[in-house]
Amino acid sequence: MLQFFGMTNQRKKRQIPNKAKDLSEWYLAVVREAKLADYAPVRGTMVFRPWGYALWENLQKYLDDLIKEMGVENAYFPIFIPMSLLEKEESHVEGFSPELAVVTHGGGERLKEALAVRPTSETIMYTMFSKWISGWRDLPLKINQWANVVRWEKRTFPFLRTAEFLWQEGHTAHATHEEAKAQVYLALEAYKKVFFEQLAVWGVTGWKSESEKFAGGLKTTSFEALMPDGKALQAATSHDLGQNFSRAFEVSFQDKEGKKKYVWQTSWGLSTRALGGLIMVHGDDQGLFLPPKIAPIQIVIIPIYQDKNKKIVLTAAKNLALELKQQFKVKLDDRESYSPGWKFNDWEIKGVPLRIEIGPKDLEKNQVVVVRRDNFDKLAVARVELEEVIKKLLAKQQKEALEKSKKMTQEKTHLVDSYDRFKQIMDGERGFIKAFWCGNPECETKIKAETKATTRCLPFDSKEENGHCIYCGKPAKYRWYFAQAY
Amino acid sequence: MLQFFGMTNQRKKRQIPNKAKDLSEWYLAVVREAKLADYAPVRGTMVFRPWGYALWENLQKYLDDLIKEMGVENAYFPIFIPMSLLEKEESHVEGFSPELAVVTHGGGERLKEALAVRPTSETIMYTMFSKWISGWRDLPLKINQWANVVRWEKRTFPFLRTAEFLWQEGHTAHATHEEAKAQVYLALEAYKKVFFEQLAVWGVTGWKSESEKFAGGLKTTSFEALMPDGKALQAATSHDLGQNFSRAFEVSFQDKEGKKKYVWQTSWGLSTRALGGLIMVHGDDQGLFLPPKIAPIQIVIIPIYQDKNKKIVLTAAKNLALELKQQFKVKLDDRESYSPGWKFNDWEIKGVPLRIEIGPKDLEKNQVVVVRRDNFDKLAVARVELEEVIKKLLAKQQKEALEKSKKMTQEKTHLVDSYDRFKQIMDGERGFIKAFWCGNPECETKIKAETKATTRCLPFDSKEENGHCIYCGKPAKYRWYFAQAY
Repeated sequence: MLQFFGMTNQRKKRQIPNKAKDLSEWYLAVVREAKLADYAPVRGTMVFRPWGYALWENLQKYLDDLIKEMGVENAYFPIFIPMSLLEKEESHVEGFSPELAVVTHGGGERLKEALAVRPTSETIMYTMFSKWISGWRDLPLKINQWANVVRWEKRTFPFLRTAEFLWQEGHTAHATHEEAKAQVYLALEAYKKVFFEQLAVWGVTGWKSESEKFAGGLKTTSFEALMPDGKALQAATSHDLGQNFSRAFEVSFQDKEGKKKYVWQTSWGLSTRALGGLIMVHGDDQGLFLPPKIAPIQIVIIPIYQDKNKKIVLTAAKNLALELKQQFKVKLDDRESYSPGWKFNDWEIKGVPLRIEIGPKDLEKNQVVVVRRDNFDKLAVARVELEEVIKKLLAKQQKEALEKSKKMTQEKTHLVDSYDRFKQIMDGERGFIKAFWCGNPECETKIKAETKATTRCLPFDSKEENGHCIYCGKPAKYRWYFAQAY
Repeated sequence: MLQFFGMTNQRKKRQIPNKAKDLSEWYLAVVREAKLADYAPVRGTMVFRPWGYALWENLQKYLDDLIKEMGVENAYFPIFIPMSLLEKEESHVEGFSPELAVVTHGGGERLKEALAVRPTSETIMYTMFSKWISGWRDLPLKINQWANVVRWEKRTFPFLRTAEFLWQEGHTAHATHEEAKAQVYLALEAYKKVFFEQLAVWGVTGWKSESEKFAGGLKTTSFEALMPDGKALQAATSHDLGQNFSRAFEVSFQDKEGKKKYVWQTSWGLSTRALGGLIMVHGDDQGLFLPPKIAPIQIVIIPIYQDKNKKIVLTAAKNLALELKQQFKVKLDDRESYSPGWKFNDWEIKGVPLRIEIGPKDLEKNQVVVVRRDNFDKLAVARVELEEVIKKLLAKQQKEALEKSKKMTQEKTHLVDSYDRFKQIMDGERGFIKAFWCGNPECETKIKAETKATTRCLPFDSKEENGHCIYCGKPAKYRWYFAQAY
């Protein structure tokens, strides 16, 4: 094997463009250079490379536990949905048909009925629910599935909008509307926990407007996060479906008095889109930064040695890795064909929260050097204090990442009462605008046409006030969040 | 809420047909009554219900750890594969084209090129590998994905053969053939571990014949398990792809001397089909039996009480559940709308290994009653000894389940040297036949046409002997395993 000496320049250092200057260009470079994803042969589809998929695996583990705590069970439903099923709920098929991928041939023959590749699973799941639910004892029925879904998008962007993506979709059926509504909030709370506590992405939870709600549902709630370019990301949604689908799919039950009733339903989903938000919010000009709780590797150990002390340094690095693996996610990068400098750069781009450098001088002093990825603070830590220091540093990084995201969001959130100022903001710095809206969809449509901004949500903690619609000036009670959206 | 008294007959006891009499009928009843799966609207597709999916989740966790121990990383590749990619390796497309589902429309428009819904991912993965691999430093590349795949089958059967199924597919690229071959065996060893140690399903590992190998590969190895009706199940496969795909997809690298070389590749997969084997091997006339290591619930606690002692029994049952949950997978079934008898039946059908009954008399004696699902042994166990007893019982059940499967397989394995006897066995009891075969595909084809038996594999531990082909009588060195296959 080659030694690393003199190899620093053998492979060129990968450059990340300036984030503030052009977020899109920066984002695409980070996705590529951190090996998160790659373009696949079919337009709009992408490959989740191991580093990107590992993020999804971590998110899955965290969210799956929360889902199971809600008493929801995992299952799996087929990807093929007969077109006739999709058409049973009128506004649902209207909403999804422009985005469908359709299978027309199977086993060399033309199919009698074309099949949609699932864009979401309400219709196929509720066909089965109708079969499984007959009496009150069968309720509540709470099902979740982790699956791939397909929506044929015109404009695509890695993670944020792709023809195929991965997600979980929870679907529940209840005896009463109250119970269903409670489930809608529970699911959204779980999502908020993922964003706040795991991804360290700040955001707002609230109700969507009628025009922005889920096709076929009664009410939609969502988690909306702001990106550094001032555009909003609808990062997860939870729907109160009312009885729209249960009536269309005959999902009914006999109550305790023997009366036939339709169930009340919810559905809620979080997708790989959330990872796009994570990347945008936490990366910098050196590449990605991963908050410790989502990072597939929390600490990378890089041994630094010369021929004469190679053995002793490598042994110490291996022992250190073994020790730290008890508590943390650790990677020892002992590849001999890359220089330490190249490795520093590589793991910085990949966003690993902490780097430990260990060399002969550190061994002499019984210490290691720890470097934080988020602010590049470098500190020499005595070996005996290392675990404690790491524990504190990781907790600090996690906390500060969320604070940074919150601060960025708050700085870009504007309380606006003049439509001129509204337009000016959306023309320039963008961000969230909190403005009164009368609730008339015509005002909403015109605002969108004139500023590209849509209603993002009415926050759950909104208070009734006496205001005037930012567009038409008529009385309005609530300030909605507006933003241009991804 | 209603009490359970007098409710035993309110819901009819579900009956499972005799297993020995008609395995298919029994199998379908168990799949239905244990709520493992259900038929979905599209012909040949099925829904994995929570109890069936939980088996897959457990298997996934176990196998995923083994895969990661091999240094393989998870990723995700698109489900849509352009037809032109599939056609790049000639025998590969020949093998898979009769089973393809094809997307012709997306977003309301006819696509310029039709897309196959992945039947397996060699072609799309290696298109990417060709992009990612350029030098020896990029090798080995070891990727796995957990995904759904579609094969348009004519005859379908829940779990064993469905139009869509779930699996993992590992794909690796290496600098040398030796390294690739080692990986082929490593993967098959991991599968054997899943079957032997988790599913408690005995079987044989070996090489497939030329006619039974993977379309496009060089050599296929497989794990073959025998079902109680004497038919074999090819339960997992691992392929040495040689350089067939690397040449077709230009997956090459510069070696240390700067020479261009093609990589050596492997692929290997295990699917939800394995669960079909588990069900068949371990069920009985009372329903399913789940070996403890695959069981989503290992112990179900059923409180038995009357109004006057309800509170004290339920409290004791809850405390017991909390205590046992520290070590085991435990479910407390305290549903008030079902009688204990109905619950016994329900969990027996579902195959939970141990049932604990706890009633007022047990409390007085400071004991519980433990019932084994596999042999219905019933024993009173002192509360203080319970954890130790359970630990031993679960280990015993796991061990005995594998022994039972091994015994059944051995009893149905015949050493045969006369073709008449071969035909007689395949006409009657069936099972594995170990018979000499000269290696000529013509003999293989004729045997299949005349007896429905195919070569299953040449076991890895086969010894060279001086024999004569069971069909043509010409010299033959090895005894192959033959069987009718699922």
